[in-house]
Amino acid sequence: MSSAGSQSLFSALQRLASDLVTGEELVQRLQAATESGNPLRVKYGIDPTFPEVHLGHAVPLRVLRLFQDHGHLPVLILGDATARLGDPTGRNEQRPPLTTEEVENNAATYLDQIGRIVDLSSDRCEVRRNSEWFAGMDFFGALQLAAQGTVARLLERDDFRQRMDQRQAVHLHEMMYPLMQGWDSVAVQADVEIGGNDQLFNLHMGRLLQERNSQTAQVCLTTPLLLGTDGSKMSKSLGNHVPLAGNPNDAFGKIMSLSDEAMPAWFALLTPLSESELQDLLAGHPRDAKVGLARSIVAWLHGDEAAAAAILEFDQRFREGGLPTDIPELRLTGDSLPLAQLLKAAKLANSTSDARRLLEQGGVRVDGVVLKDPNALVEIGEDGILCQVGKRRVARIFLDPA
Amino acid sequence: MSSAGSQSLFSALQRLASDLVTGEELVQRLQAATESGNPLRVKYGIDPTFPEVHLGHAVPLRVLRLFQDHGHLPVLILGDATARLGDPTGRNEQRPPLTTEEVENNAATYLDQIGRIVDLSSDRCEVRRNSEWFAGMDFFGALQLAAQGTVARLLERDDFRQRMDQRQAVHLHEMMYPLMQGWDSVAVQADVEIGGNDQLFNLHMGRLLQERNSQTAQVCLTTPLLLGTDGSKMSKSLGNHVPLAGNPNDAFGKIMSLSDEAMPAWFALLTPLSESELQDLLAGHPRDAKVGLARSIVAWLHGDEAAAAAILEFDQRFREGGLPTDIPELRLTGDSLPLAQLLKAAKLANSTSDARRLLEQGGVRVDGVVLKDPNALVEIGEDGILCQVGKRRVARIFLDPA
Repeated sequence: MSSAGSQSLFSALQRLASDLVTGEELVQRLQAATESGNPLRVKYGIDPTFPEVHLGHAVPLRVLRLFQDHGHLPVLILGDATARLGDPTGRNEQRPPLTTEEVENNAATYLDQIGRIVDLSSDRCEVRRNSEWFAGMDFFGALQLAAQGTVARLLERDDFRQRMDQRQAVHLHEMMYPLMQGWDSVAVQADVEIGGNDQLFNLHMGRLLQERNSQTAQVCLTTPLLLGTDGSKMSKSLGNHVPLAGNPNDAFGKIMSLSDEAMPAWFALLTPLSESELQDLLAGHPRDAKVGLARSIVAWLHGDEAAAAAILEFDQRFREGGLPTDIPELRLTGDSLPLAQLLKAAKLANSTSDARRLLEQGGVRVDGVVLKDPNALVEIGEDGILCQVGKRRVARIFLDPA
Repeated sequence: MSSAGSQSLFSALQRLASDLVTGEELVQRLQAATESGNPLRVKYGIDPTFPEVHLGHAVPLRVLRLFQDHGHLPVLILGDATARLGDPTGRNEQRPPLTTEEVENNAATYLDQIGRIVDLSSDRCEVRRNSEWFAGMDFFGALQLAAQGTVARLLERDDFRQRMDQRQAVHLHEMMYPLMQGWDSVAVQADVEIGGNDQLFNLHMGRLLQERNSQTAQVCLTTPLLLGTDGSKMSKSLGNHVPLAGNPNDAFGKIMSLSDEAMPAWFALLTPLSESELQDLLAGHPRDAKVGLARSIVAWLHGDEAAAAAILEFDQRFREGGLPTDIPELRLTGDSLPLAQLLKAAKLANSTSDARRLLEQGGVRVDGVVLKDPNALVEIGEDGILCQVGKRRVARIFLDPA
C-alpha cells in the first residue's frame, strides 16, 4: 500500500462504481490504511442459490481483485444462511427457499469459480459463511436482529414498495434479508462492501447496523449491472449469461453473439482497457472489437492459451459452417414438406434416408430444438426456421406460398 | 357436558362477549363436544410483564371459568417468551423487553392470582409456558414463522397502522408478536381463544396460522375492556386498578371509589347478576349498589368472610374518619407553622410531642406523601393540604394570610 497506489486504486474504482457512499470516506479509509499499514477489509457476499457464477458477478469480483492487488483484504462471504431464505430482490415471485443440501452443493462449486478472479489463498483472502453467525443465533437472537429495523425503513426498498403497491404479498421473513446482510457486515467488521447496484439498499443496511453496534459505517460501492448477451438482464434462465467456469470455446462464442450496443459496457466493466484504447477499438469494425473483447475475457478467466484456442475453434467452425451473420438462406415455394424431405431440399442432408438417420441420432435442431420425427410438418413463419445439422451445417429456410 | 348445559353456556358467553368469531362455529364446537364427550380446549394467554394481575384480566378469566364449569379444559398460557418481546398493543412507546429473570419473577406470582378465578388443578386445567416451543426454535425457525405473515396483513393491526401513519417507528420484531401469539394456538391446538377486545387481531392470527398448519381455525371470543375506577383505561401506573391478590379491604375501598357511570359495566362483567337483578339494584341508591358490587367482587376473589370483614372495616373507617366527601376542613390564619405544630393546631395530634412521635413512625401523610420532619414548613396552596394521621384521622387545612 502506498499513497500513489491508493490514488490509482481510487481512480480505477471511480470508473467502475455505480454508487459510492461515500467517496470522501473511501479516500479517508485508504489514507488511514496507507498510514497504518492495516489493509481494508473489503466484503463481498454472494448467496449460493444457483450452481453457477456468471460474468454478471465478475464485475464486483473485479473490484474485489483491484482492492486485493493494492494490498487490501477481500472478505468473501458465502451466504449459505441467506441462501436458505432466498433474496426476493428484483423478483415479483418469492424465491423458493433452498434446502441445506442444495445450498451446500452450490457453495462447493463457487470457490473454484470465484478463484478465477480473486486470489483465494488464505493469506490474501478471508472466506466466510454466514451460517457461522446465524446458525448459532436462537429465536430471540432473530427477534433482536429484527428489532434493529423499522418497517417504514425496510419498506423503502424498491421491490418491497412495488410489490406492496401492486398488492403482491411481501412476507415478513423477506424483510429480514436486508437485516441479515447488514449483520454480515457487523460480523466481519467490513470497511467496504461491494455489490451490484441492485444491492444498494442492503449495503446501506450494513452501515446502519454497524453504527448501531458501535462500528464505523462501511463504505458502500456498487457496480453497474452487466446486461446479458441479448441486451436484457443477465440470467441463467434466459441463456444470455456466460458462466465463469464454463467451456472457454462456449464463452468465446457467446461473447461473439453480443449485440454491438452492449459492447462498450462489457469492455468498460470487464477489461482493463483505458477509455482511449476503447475508443480506438470501437472505431474499427465491430467484429474485430468483439473478437478483442471475447479474447480478453476468455484469457482473463481461462488463460491466454485457452483464449488462442477458442479463437481458432471459432474461426474454423464458422468458416466451415458459416458465420451467424452469414447463415445461408433458402427460399422454398409451395406447401410444407415432411422434415426429412425439407432437410434434403435445403441440402442439409444428402438424401432423405441420410436425413432420417441424422434425425434418429438427435443431430437435427429446428430453431434450437432437437426434432426426431422425419414426417413432422414444421410450421414455417415469416421469419423462416433455423435448421442445424450437427455443429457445422446450418441454414435458414423460408417458405413462399405457391 | 350436556346439550342444555351447552345452551346455557352459550347464552352466558354471548352476554360477556365483545366479538365472537364465529357464533355458528362455537355452537357447532359445543355440540360436537357434547356428542363426543371431548372437552373443548379453551386458550387464554397472558404475558407476565408485570408482577400483578388485576380486575381487567378477570373478565376473560371469568369466561375461562365459565367454560371450565361446563366441563371444558382451560389452557392457560403464560407468555414468558412473548413477555421478553413486549407486546406493543395500544402503546405509543415500545415496551422495553424484559429480562428472563424479571419474567420468571412475574410468572411465579401469576398462578396464585389467577387461581382465585380459575381452578388450576392439573386435571381441570392445562398450564403451559410458550417458551416450551419458542426456546427450542432456532434462527431459521423464526424465519419460517415470519414467512407465515405478510407485511400488508400485519399492518392492518390498528396500532401498527396508527404508528406508521404518525411516522412513529414500528420495529420489525414487533410484527412478530401476533405471529407468536398465533403460533401458541397451533402449539396447544386451541379450539377457542379468549382475550380482551384489543386482542382481536392477534386472535385472528391464530385462526390463520392454524388453517395454514392443517388445524381447524379456533373460535375467537373477546371481552369488553373493563375501565378503571376513574373511568379511564385500567392501568397499574394510573393507580385506577384493583389487584386480584391485593388486600381485600383495599379492594373494597377502591371499588367504592368507582364512578357511578362505570358501575353497570362492572356489574355486567364481574358479577353473575342477571339483567333484571342489575336493574333493581341500580334503581336504588348508588351507594347501596356500589356496596353490593364491592361485596360481590371481594367475596369472589377473597371469600365471603373477607367480604364481610371489608364492609365492617370500610364502615368503621369512614364513620370515624368521615367519608371522603365529609373530610373536616380547618382554616388557619397567619404564617406557615412547622409540621408538628400544624398537626397539633389541626387537632390531628394531642401535642407537638405526640405529633413528633407520629411523624417518626411514618404515620403522617401530607397530600398522600409520608413526611417525617417535624420542622418541615409545608407550603399550603389555594386548595389547602390533605393531612392524614394513621388511617382514621384526616383533615384538609387551609391557610388564610394574616
